[in-house]
Amino acid sequence: MKTLKIGVCGVGNVGGAVLENLANSPDIVEENGGVRIEIIQVGARKGKSVVPYDLDVVTDLMEVARNPKIDVLVELIGGCDLAKDLIEEAIKNGKHIVTANKALIATHGDELFELAKENKVQIGFEASVAGGTPVIKALREGLVANKVNWFAGILNGTTNFILSKMSENQSSFKDALKEAQDLGLAEADPTMDIDGTDAAQKASILSALAFNTLYDFNSVSYEGIENVSPEDIVYAEQLEYSVKHIAYGSIVDGEVNVSAFPTFVPKGQLLSQVGQQMNALEIFCEEIGSTVYYGPGAGPKPTASAVIADLVDLSNGGWPVSDKKRNKNNFAKEDNQNFGRYFNLNVINQAGAIAKLSSVFADSQISIEALIQKETKTNNKENIYVPVVIISGPLTEIEAIQLKNNLELMEETSDSVKQFRIYNAI
Amino acid sequence: MKTLKIGVCGVGNVGGAVLENLANSPDIVEENGGVRIEIIQVGARKGKSVVPYDLDVVTDLMEVARNPKIDVLVELIGGCDLAKDLIEEAIKNGKHIVTANKALIATHGDELFELAKENKVQIGFEASVAGGTPVIKALREGLVANKVNWFAGILNGTTNFILSKMSENQSSFKDALKEAQDLGLAEADPTMDIDGTDAAQKASILSALAFNTLYDFNSVSYEGIENVSPEDIVYAEQLEYSVKHIAYGSIVDGEVNVSAFPTFVPKGQLLSQVGQQMNALEIFCEEIGSTVYYGPGAGPKPTASAVIADLVDLSNGGWPVSDKKRNKNNFAKEDNQNFGRYFNLNVINQAGAIAKLSSVFADSQISIEALIQKETKTNNKENIYVPVVIISGPLTEIEAIQLKNNLELMEETSDSVKQFRIYNAI
Repeated sequence: MKTLKIGVCGVGNVGGAVLENLANSPDIVEENGGVRIEIIQVGARKGKSVVPYDLDVVTDLMEVARNPKIDVLVELIGGCDLAKDLIEEAIKNGKHIVTANKALIATHGDELFELAKENKVQIGFEASVAGGTPVIKALREGLVANKVNWFAGILNGTTNFILSKMSENQSSFKDALKEAQDLGLAEADPTMDIDGTDAAQKASILSALAFNTLYDFNSVSYEGIENVSPEDIVYAEQLEYSVKHIAYGSIVDGEVNVSAFPTFVPKGQLLSQVGQQMNALEIFCEEIGSTVYYGPGAGPKPTASAVIADLVDLSNGGWPVSDKKRNKNNFAKEDNQNFGRYFNLNVINQAGAIAKLSSVFADSQISIEALIQKETKTNNKENIYVPVVIISGPLTEIEAIQLKNNLELMEETSDSVKQFRIYNAI
Repeated sequence: MKTLKIGVCGVGNVGGAVLENLANSPDIVEENGGVRIEIIQVGARKGKSVVPYDLDVVTDLMEVARNPKIDVLVELIGGCDLAKDLIEEAIKNGKHIVTANKALIATHGDELFELAKENKVQIGFEASVAGGTPVIKALREGLVANKVNWFAGILNGTTNFILSKMSENQSSFKDALKEAQDLGLAEADPTMDIDGTDAAQKASILSALAFNTLYDFNSVSYEGIENVSPEDIVYAEQLEYSVKHIAYGSIVDGEVNVSAFPTFVPKGQLLSQVGQQMNALEIFCEEIGSTVYYGPGAGPKPTASAVIADLVDLSNGGWPVSDKKRNKNNFAKEDNQNFGRYFNLNVINQAGAIAKLSSVFADSQISIEALIQKETKTNNKENIYVPVVIISGPLTEIEAIQLKNNLELMEETSDSVKQFRIYNAI
């Protein structure tokens, strides 16, 4: 049987799960994958005490990167500083890389892949997007014969859990977040999940694979779920939508847009049914239409599953590499993704207010697809503000913000106007 | 750039789509896959007139199998006779194989893979299950680090289309089948789809990959959708189920069961949402839970997409091969898959009939989870038969048939009793 000799750097939750799988059940990989994976060395900054196996543990991670007995360095320390140095050192020492580090790939991917190419090694990063669900494999191998037109994905488990709980139990955002933290599904500091950064990083990785863009997280426009209120979720249900945080990538006339925003997904769509902390990715190809991949998007065991799948792939020749690549400077200068929109605003209860509101849409030649105005239950109904919800026709992000501004400028509206996207095939 | 030299045998719908993709858009595969696929020869029994490209066409397919310039033979003629001879001849001539032939793999898989191993070549068969949805890739590569406990799949597009139409439009089976035929989704003779054979063949292929069983289509127990009536679908809706044809494979205590039957799927499950002619496969692994793969399960372009993905994989080292395989004699002697069941029967409208019916369940210690008895709308309500629907607790196939027989033996029931499975995690 083939043997693959690896070094593992980082023994946190994911690193621990990788060691556990390979140490306790080597037979599964040997039987399914036809390769014996030998852990030659472990890099753990806290030392041997945190590694419950009889392995060679070193505290200087660079020692692993330079170890001549190792074929592959598995980087599971996270972050962009030490991880980058470590990977570069390992590549220069002729080692393949397997990593779960989405922030690093999304930010320094091109640089690292270039270096890998020069040194004739490969970098596996299946674990960086959607954890145990093999979406990168599907995208670059399963769908290799196709031109991808767009993808839409629920790529952050924490926010999906929060939105699902807000919908199922009418929880507040705060309570749902606390529940996620109590269950270990959200970090103590969940900022990167909540504000959309994590999903945007993953979207930029998918974009590079789907559209051959640069790995450029800065080209992704995104927003988090902080502004989704229980009220929005109730309206969504009434209008037969689920509220999800959806990362979108699309190519139109050779121009790529990548974005990640809270989005109303029609109940008939598979993505609307993805609950709990689960992830799902829909990939639409010109010739064959949509395929959808659903599964656990994070957590030690699913992430370890993806890391080990990459190792088996490496033992088996690695992944397609092409010299003939299309133009990489294909990010759109201007946003060209069109979505229907949900607007939530407060309008004064007086004659002509709704007519004026409608005319703001009409003036910009934007259609109103649905409108909900609830009856006011107070006695004195004159001149108080009532909530109004409008579903509009398709608008780009810029047009939607323009319309939102125009609505906020109306005398008849109070506070700020909220708007979210509506899922559609781009 | 690497080059892969192929011969294509069979230029029907799928063969035509493969030639079209490679002839018209070679740049997609070159850019994504890093390989130039050269069609060296085409085997078409009807000759050059049916091949609208400037290619070397021969009518004797064996010439392709023996052509020394070819690395891979793509078999798209279907059936088990000539296709088997052709593939064997090609393997003996040192060629890799890519095929979409599910019947052949499900029946002669072991023999062919043995021969391929002896001759140090590989056989790609991604196109044999779920068409353009890369489920075989997910199962043997993406999930390589996992022990699969069970899978559940909608693997036949024709029957899924028919069941979906019966549900959406209250169509009869006959009308829905006609609609499928008019749309080119069902063959003129749809027997193999309708009676479950096609799904059972695919299930036996998945079983070999998931549980290392033999490729033994005869070990799959299955039934078609002929007995699903519009009435059953209405009851399903009332009880919040969708009726789907589900292929199940499971391993319990080392024993494998594979089966394919009409199944009631709870509305909350992703598989219940798979409409039209789409396919979906849920794979449950011990450590990471369920992943689900959804997409087009048939049709020329999706199938061609899978064939070409296999070719790119072959150019890149092929697939994991293991010498260390578990016991292949692991099919269960007796059915051990437990499912809740839907029973539909006609019971005489007289005092004590339902009590007696219930006691038949109680005598076998089978729980009744739900019961629907509709009020009779006729004037004389005595001694006429009324429909009764019961959802039972979990039963094996044998237990379900035993209970069905006992119910049919009751004096208070008329006609035959119908029973279907209810989807659950095994």
